Amino acid sequence: MVNGVFMMLAAVFSWFYDEDVLGQIILAGTVAIGSGGIIMFLTRNHRKEIQKREGYIIVTFGWVFMALIGTLPYIFTGAIPNFTNAFFETMSGYSTTGATILTDIESLPNGILFWRSITHWIGGMGIIVLAIAILPLLGIGGMQLFAAEAPGPSGDKLHPRITDTAKRLWLIYVGYTLAETILLKMAGMSFFDAINHSLSTLGTGGFSTKNASVAYWNDKPMIQYILILFMFLAGTNFVLSYFAFKRKFQKIFKDEEFKMYGLFVVGLTTIAALLIYFEADVSASSIAHPMVWGPAESAFRHALFQVVSLITTTGFISADYTMWTPFLTIFFFGMMFLGGSAGSTSGGIKVMRHLIMIKNGVLEFKRTLHPHAILPVRYNTKAVPQPIVFNILGFFILYMLSFIIGTLVFSWLGLDFKTALGGAASTLGNIGPGLGNLGPVDTYANLPSAAKWWSSFLMLIGRLELFTVLILLTPFFWRNR
Amino acid sequence: MVNGVFMMLAAVFSWFYDEDVLGQIILAGTVAIGSGGIIMFLTRNHRKEIQKREGYIIVTFGWVFMALIGTLPYIFTGAIPNFTNAFFETMSGYSTTGATILTDIESLPNGILFWRSITHWIGGMGIIVLAIAILPLLGIGGMQLFAAEAPGPSGDKLHPRITDTAKRLWLIYVGYTLAETILLKMAGMSFFDAINHSLSTLGTGGFSTKNASVAYWNDKPMIQYILILFMFLAGTNFVLSYFAFKRKFQKIFKDEEFKMYGLFVVGLTTIAALLIYFEADVSASSIAHPMVWGPAESAFRHALFQVVSLITTTGFISADYTMWTPFLTIFFFGMMFLGGSAGSTSGGIKVMRHLIMIKNGVLEFKRTLHPHAILPVRYNTKAVPQPIVFNILGFFILYMLSFIIGTLVFSWLGLDFKTALGGAASTLGNIGPGLGNLGPVDTYANLPSAAKWWSSFLMLIGRLELFTVLILLTPFFWRNR
Repeated sequence: MVNGVFMMLAAVFSWFYDEDVLGQIILAGTVAIGSGGIIMFLTRNHRKEIQKREGYIIVTFGWVFMALIGTLPYIFTGAIPNFTNAFFETMSGYSTTGATILTDIESLPNGILFWRSITHWIGGMGIIVLAIAILPLLGIGGMQLFAAEAPGPSGDKLHPRITDTAKRLWLIYVGYTLAETILLKMAGMSFFDAINHSLSTLGTGGFSTKNASVAYWNDKPMIQYILILFMFLAGTNFVLSYFAFKRKFQKIFKDEEFKMYGLFVVGLTTIAALLIYFEADVSASSIAHPMVWGPAESAFRHALFQVVSLITTTGFISADYTMWTPFLTIFFFGMMFLGGSAGSTSGGIKVMRHLIMIKNGVLEFKRTLHPHAILPVRYNTKAVPQPIVFNILGFFILYMLSFIIGTLVFSWLGLDFKTALGGAASTLGNIGPGLGNLGPVDTYANLPSAAKWWSSFLMLIGRLELFTVLILLTPFFWRNR
Repeated sequence: MVNGVFMMLAAVFSWFYDEDVLGQIILAGTVAIGSGGIIMFLTRNHRKEIQKREGYIIVTFGWVFMALIGTLPYIFTGAIPNFTNAFFETMSGYSTTGATILTDIESLPNGILFWRSITHWIGGMGIIVLAIAILPLLGIGGMQLFAAEAPGPSGDKLHPRITDTAKRLWLIYVGYTLAETILLKMAGMSFFDAINHSLSTLGTGGFSTKNASVAYWNDKPMIQYILILFMFLAGTNFVLSYFAFKRKFQKIFKDEEFKMYGLFVVGLTTIAALLIYFEADVSASSIAHPMVWGPAESAFRHALFQVVSLITTTGFISADYTMWTPFLTIFFFGMMFLGGSAGSTSGGIKVMRHLIMIKNGVLEFKRTLHPHAILPVRYNTKAVPQPIVFNILGFFILYMLSFIIGTLVFSWLGLDFKTALGGAASTLGNIGPGLGNLGPVDTYANLPSAAKWWSSFLMLIGRLELFTVLILLTPFFWRNR
């Protein structure tokens, strides 16, 4: 039903721009609201409390079901007539990946473009609830750690946390979206492009309304700086944004994950900017032109843009980073494994987990030297319980395993070495652009069908923090109910 | 001094084949024995018991010092006049990697070839002592697990374990080497080639006396099957070989690591053989010809050979696996991260660690469902203490981190994407052949000097199970002595 309401919003845009597809979008919205209503009516007397096991099933199948319903506007309007493609595009939207099978985005009606962007936004909203309220209860990969810091009444019951916490954070989410839209408009975007890019940014998605993505605005650096700022905010734990509005700034600057996240951005940007300025053949990368404010600013801006875009797993492109130097290609590829902050809309492994792994790694050396000392990992001054550290290490290994299997399957389906590696890293991390034939200026259009379904699967498991989906594939999950 | 004695053995070969380099090899041997003797004389009154901290220093610098002395025969004879190259080749030898900077191996004098092969064998002997007796005491990456099973008197003192256990396992090591030499000779190799390949096999090294490596004997399948058998044995925990000679066969077939190791070989060979037979353009890979016993046997043999060679981290080549199908390239690349058994001479992550990680991964799903249940990892029916599981997970993450940094540095030094990835995986795993310009039919000769030193470093840390070397780079190691 929520999907349907947003489809109606897309219809409003279609109506405003006087498009032929108006009727079909309204039809899609009606079907979505109608089927939601029927399900609601049929289950109206079902009041049983949700158990943990049901939690995994609801989250996973809920996401898949959303994606299925979300294909309707594409299919009904004929914008994406092929079901595989439509499902890929919708899953890419809800998982806030931003990988696309469209080769000519600008030819689509505005109503459809708006629907495409808002799937990111809906996905991002869903992820905030999941990350703050649901995943910690399901015991997923260390999500318990920062959930303790979340605003709202504490307690283990699902219901009060979801409604209360979600309301506060969604308000921030909506506020950021409006602010970005206004700023982008002021910086010279059309209103339609501004709202679409804002929706896409906040969900750390990456769908653009332009074929060249954000490189379209290379002559308007301010637009790109605004996008960088909001990508950074969308990749920050929303709880910290909440603290900012409550003027509890010391909580933000004491947050170890935020400091590390900032350090990643500053450090990696510095390296990339120096390399672009001194070594890269920028003229070979025509997409990065023109250099309005000179080559130094251009090198800095494109470095910062790509670093923030990849770390936050947004996937907007201001330049083809695979065209700079061979080292930078592998450098940006490595960045796909970082991810933004926990409690943000970004995907990937995430800074908090890297932080715990680094701390535990250092302690492991100390433990080797002093086998009898008890050395717990500390995070934001508190000792992290052993099972949570275990869970995070396990998550990382499962992530790498998923990446390896993802690559092998892509390769099996005929993708070349670089494309398979880049595609797996990018879909699993919910980023969008990969390497090789799936590079920043390419699309997923030419993949074989099976590879598109595999991509959709990787996007789903990556988005739902692996455990949530993969636990359904274990035999013991279904035993002893 | 041990090095010097083996150099004298190389001199015997040089004398037998009536080579000019005899004098220089004897000189190298004399310098080695002499300098060893001087150090021994100077430290003759030093009787202090070795502490744990000294252990790391002795193992790391001992290995480096061995490699430095080991360059003498190459440099004195002018076989490898460049010091960087000579150090690379010696480190590759002692670390049982088998990567070479030589482009025309067959032009070298036999005395030098023998020295080159025996560096593998010495390295292998060193690794057995390390793995069975020293690393467990230093608390490295789960090595405690199978050390409990090692023969010999138990106890925590370094001395009795080393001498007793090492003697028994070295006897097996020597026995295998002799048996392989005789079998290879019977199958049609020259005696010189047979002894060299046996030394190289037992150390899971990979140096060959032929430019084409083992592909030279593609017309003699029996030779290749013998090599496969002994590579497999060299990649098996030597303690199990000891049990076999004691006729305790039930201990072998109950060993979970051995079963997993067998499963890896059988499973991966089946997949590779089917793909080679049905999909690969074998004619493109001229190195795999002739097919003496028909195409099916050829596909099976080359699949098995490459699987065993890569898993055991030997790195012998019977065919250029990067020429088959794109999928197989990435498949064999993935295999570089497996490694043979703990307690063998193979490098890499090793089966035991994978086994613990898989078991812990499954349990992590169960722990997610039942957060209050206590579910320890079991290995060979015994519960593995939590700190050891922790240590193994930490090792894996450190391994992946070393691989990523290894790749980034290679790429920084100018290697292309594929070559950098393959080179890092191969040197860190002590395998030898990589991908791209470091593929199975290429050598490391054309790398820039800095990349050769970086390779040597990766070979060293990979061989010494990371912690042993990297702990020396932590500031707290040198504090509070």
